Amino acid sequence: MHRTHTCGELRIEDSGKTVILSGWVQRSRDLGGMTFIDLRDRYGITQILFNMEVNAGLCEKARKLGREFVVKITGKVNERSNKNPKMHTGDIEIEAENLEILNVSKTPPFTIEDETDGGEELRMQYRYLDLRRNTVQQKLILRHKLAIATRAYLDKAGFLEIETPYLIKSTPEGARDFVVPSRMNPGEFYALPQSPQTFKQLLMVSGFDRYFQIVRCFRDEDLRADRQPEFTQIDCEMAFVEQEDILNTFEGLTKHLFKEILNTELPAFPRMDYAVAMAKYGSDKPDIRFGMEINDISNLAKGKGFQVFDNSEAVLAIVAEGCAEYSRKQVDALTDWVKRPQIGAKGLVYVKYQGDGIVKSSIDKFFEVEQLEEWCKACGAKPGDMLLALSGDLATTQKQIGELRLHMGKELNIRNTSHFAPLWVVDFPLMEYDAEEGRHFAMHHPFTSPKPEDIHKLETATSEVRANAYDLVINGVEIGGGSIRIHDKELQAKIFDLLAFTREEAQQQFGFLMNAFEYGAPPHGGIAFGFDRLSSLFGGSESIRDYIAFPKNNSGRDVMIDAPAPIDAKQLDELGLTLKKVEK
Amino acid sequence: MHRTHTCGELRIEDSGKTVILSGWVQRSRDLGGMTFIDLRDRYGITQILFNMEVNAGLCEKARKLGREFVVKITGKVNERSNKNPKMHTGDIEIEAENLEILNVSKTPPFTIEDETDGGEELRMQYRYLDLRRNTVQQKLILRHKLAIATRAYLDKAGFLEIETPYLIKSTPEGARDFVVPSRMNPGEFYALPQSPQTFKQLLMVSGFDRYFQIVRCFRDEDLRADRQPEFTQIDCEMAFVEQEDILNTFEGLTKHLFKEILNTELPAFPRMDYAVAMAKYGSDKPDIRFGMEINDISNLAKGKGFQVFDNSEAVLAIVAEGCAEYSRKQVDALTDWVKRPQIGAKGLVYVKYQGDGIVKSSIDKFFEVEQLEEWCKACGAKPGDMLLALSGDLATTQKQIGELRLHMGKELNIRNTSHFAPLWVVDFPLMEYDAEEGRHFAMHHPFTSPKPEDIHKLETATSEVRANAYDLVINGVEIGGGSIRIHDKELQAKIFDLLAFTREEAQQQFGFLMNAFEYGAPPHGGIAFGFDRLSSLFGGSESIRDYIAFPKNNSGRDVMIDAPAPIDAKQLDELGLTLKKVEK
Repeated sequence: MHRTHTCGELRIEDSGKTVILSGWVQRSRDLGGMTFIDLRDRYGITQILFNMEVNAGLCEKARKLGREFVVKITGKVNERSNKNPKMHTGDIEIEAENLEILNVSKTPPFTIEDETDGGEELRMQYRYLDLRRNTVQQKLILRHKLAIATRAYLDKAGFLEIETPYLIKSTPEGARDFVVPSRMNPGEFYALPQSPQTFKQLLMVSGFDRYFQIVRCFRDEDLRADRQPEFTQIDCEMAFVEQEDILNTFEGLTKHLFKEILNTELPAFPRMDYAVAMAKYGSDKPDIRFGMEINDISNLAKGKGFQVFDNSEAVLAIVAEGCAEYSRKQVDALTDWVKRPQIGAKGLVYVKYQGDGIVKSSIDKFFEVEQLEEWCKACGAKPGDMLLALSGDLATTQKQIGELRLHMGKELNIRNTSHFAPLWVVDFPLMEYDAEEGRHFAMHHPFTSPKPEDIHKLETATSEVRANAYDLVINGVEIGGGSIRIHDKELQAKIFDLLAFTREEAQQQFGFLMNAFEYGAPPHGGIAFGFDRLSSLFGGSESIRDYIAFPKNNSGRDVMIDAPAPIDAKQLDELGLTLKKVEK
Repeated sequence: MHRTHTCGELRIEDSGKTVILSGWVQRSRDLGGMTFIDLRDRYGITQILFNMEVNAGLCEKARKLGREFVVKITGKVNERSNKNPKMHTGDIEIEAENLEILNVSKTPPFTIEDETDGGEELRMQYRYLDLRRNTVQQKLILRHKLAIATRAYLDKAGFLEIETPYLIKSTPEGARDFVVPSRMNPGEFYALPQSPQTFKQLLMVSGFDRYFQIVRCFRDEDLRADRQPEFTQIDCEMAFVEQEDILNTFEGLTKHLFKEILNTELPAFPRMDYAVAMAKYGSDKPDIRFGMEINDISNLAKGKGFQVFDNSEAVLAIVAEGCAEYSRKQVDALTDWVKRPQIGAKGLVYVKYQGDGIVKSSIDKFFEVEQLEEWCKACGAKPGDMLLALSGDLATTQKQIGELRLHMGKELNIRNTSHFAPLWVVDFPLMEYDAEEGRHFAMHHPFTSPKPEDIHKLETATSEVRANAYDLVINGVEIGGGSIRIHDKELQAKIFDLLAFTREEAQQQFGFLMNAFEYGAPPHGGIAFGFDRLSSLFGGSESIRDYIAFPKNNSGRDVMIDAPAPIDAKQLDELGLTLKKVEK
């Protein structure tokens, strides 16, 4: 090997040993008759000393090394005179006896430091250099550890990792599929899986009982920040279980990962109904690290002659603690914020409950002071606080004020960022009605089981039917989600009906699953965790891209390898395809 | 949960306990006033007893259960009067107190038994039922264990599992790529990776030092038995190493897997030059569980007036021990065998060295007895043995007699099938000349390093240059292969030249890798193991298909889900594609 030790390994106890190290030249400096090189590898940095008096030729050679040259050093471990307590190897240095240049390097386009001078685009183009930075390496090492710990836990719990195919069949339901033309079957296409959903259900039909897979999934959706065309999930399924068993099992996994990776003990995860989450937090993934719950003040605010409220389905308010002193400018900024197209509110009403007990509001003209005081009381505001209210149709206003709540939590810095607040959100609606398309869509997916006590409402009050579906939310981020599946063929057929599948469509797309259900399907259910997001949560970052070795940009391009790219006419021909003229 | 125990768990010590089991009805039989049900799950089978005298209603219900019904049984564990020592649960039975039918089942199209009556095609169509069979489940459980043990070993050895992208760029070199049209970049395509080769090399440039990944790979090749369009490999790469380090590391992994999974201790793996493997075994993946090495008798056989030999480059012979008594019919069968198009020999020469010392041959007319005796002596044949000889050009004849050797090894049953004989084949040629295309092709891939001592021959004797490439062969099966890579940009450019890439082609296809090599690439190398094949080797099977949960057939079809399939006109349109008229 080109080394006896790594650059992060040697300690004072190794003094006197002759060693060989290989790595990259991080930096070098000349001090009188000495040259010091910081030699770097994945494991750390070790200082190398070249002494002009001892070996002038070697020292001259060292002085010509550029940044990122790859070198192999033979030398003796010595105690350092000028120790660096910040480095694991800071007590020693290597007095070089030989230097071999394994490879040269051009000057990198940005510095290979934790705080680099390279912009996002440049770093993505030279991702292989960006990946040399210690902060980035640590993110991928964290991801590796998470995968190892996940597999160890699930293996011990009797789960089998079973690989499912990547070349499968396209289904129009759900997000758009990436497709793969088949050369051997011209005119036909495979699809890349959006998830192994149907296969893991078939594995339950096969009796595998406890399945998992850390698996790549693909969605051809319009990209936005933190959405990649390919992503990884921890995909799990269990048979002979009920919802409670799944929540317990994967609460166990999550706690294990926090303990193993972050040495954090999590308490029992609270549970919250979807309806409560929407009412109190305006979100199906509430960040419960802080309160500031939503208050419905509709019956206090409506019918008092203020047209905006009177014409609204709901008036919702949150209490911003200690914000009564907010300036006009600050309130205007909040108003602008809620009016942004991403939020889409028409305006913002404030009620300042001043420290002196006086109430001031943007709607003083329309309401009596006593009425506004009543609002403050109903919302639990104390002197010094400010009420912020939005109005409109209930569902939209919930989401808007939920966003405002998150914004205020950030602005007031009341989210404990070193704290993890997990939460199970349960009892999601089974289907949502899409007025535009005039049909119901599955909220989770078409295989999700309705709650038994709601099945009688399937036809009469479809939108009210709740599902045996659940999400794991941590700090306002959806980490995982799943459901108990339908294992009854008749019920599955009825759900396809309600989702406006014709029998032929259902048969064509999911026939194999429905057929499988004729041969003794056990009760089963599962969950999938977004592994990219889980990694970034553990790393304390909001961006998933850093936790992917070779991510794609917002146009779905890998700018380093320059993909996608045109292919040969011969390749197209073999696939039986022609390109339409594209207007650029 | 729908059970307190699994069907493989209860023992005599559990007698008296009230338990709940869930599973599938394997079989049932009525015996006087009793009904016995064998209840099956992944973990085993437990006998359930229904007693007409105790509970007639329950027993009547049990008598109506069909095969593969899913049931939930509550009952008491009793010692069995009629114990079955072949079953782990054979000492006990459950006296049923309650029976809940969780799901019904149609009669399966084949029996769910180790020895099923279902043909290959039917089993693939109903793969979810085939996967219920214990023998099939055990294969996937073995695969799971192999993956877990591989990851544990490599993690402990400092390897990081890093996921590389599946949506990459098509390269015309090597096998044909599957491509994925990009909707966001019309007219452009991603390719699915044939291996993460370039990405793992980039990870070495990034300093990750020790990488692995159990990863899906894709090749759009014409399929044959044991070749799947998607397959899995254990992909590995190390930096700052030489060939010796890689062989040692992965010999260690292989030994660990044999010890861990099969409790087999393997001795140190012998090494064999590619040239020796071809000369002695006529194969680059010799099965060394038996001898029967190839002898070159060209100088004894040529120039004696037998035209067929005189016009051949080489005459090669093997000794079939104890076969002097082979009948005319047996020899004819061997002759037919070597003449099959898959082998392509023109004829077979035999020399029987009879037990009485007399030599008889198919070419008695052309050779003196003394000459034939000389052959026998040269090949080490003893009285009672038979010499089999083929002739022709050296390379072709080596392969043909190599095949004959394997055939005889099987026919004579001299391969120790319970023995594992690993072997490193080393010093492969760097390139092969393709006369048809009039150019050299990389034997391994274009990034493989020539042996330093052969570099001077690169331009003058290209085909003679040996590579730092190696294969791991076990029992005649290629399990893994790899090489030390080129890390020098100039040498890489020269290799691309010799492979007849223009600078533009090289830049377009591998520009990102060549650019990366300008920034301090360390010496590195790696290996990849075929994980499907490794699993089947460990399982003692010659078919990889059984070790894949959802395999494709020889036309690349998944007959269960019926993929590939046509896609919507709308989908095609979004991708900017039209189908050519296909003549069926």
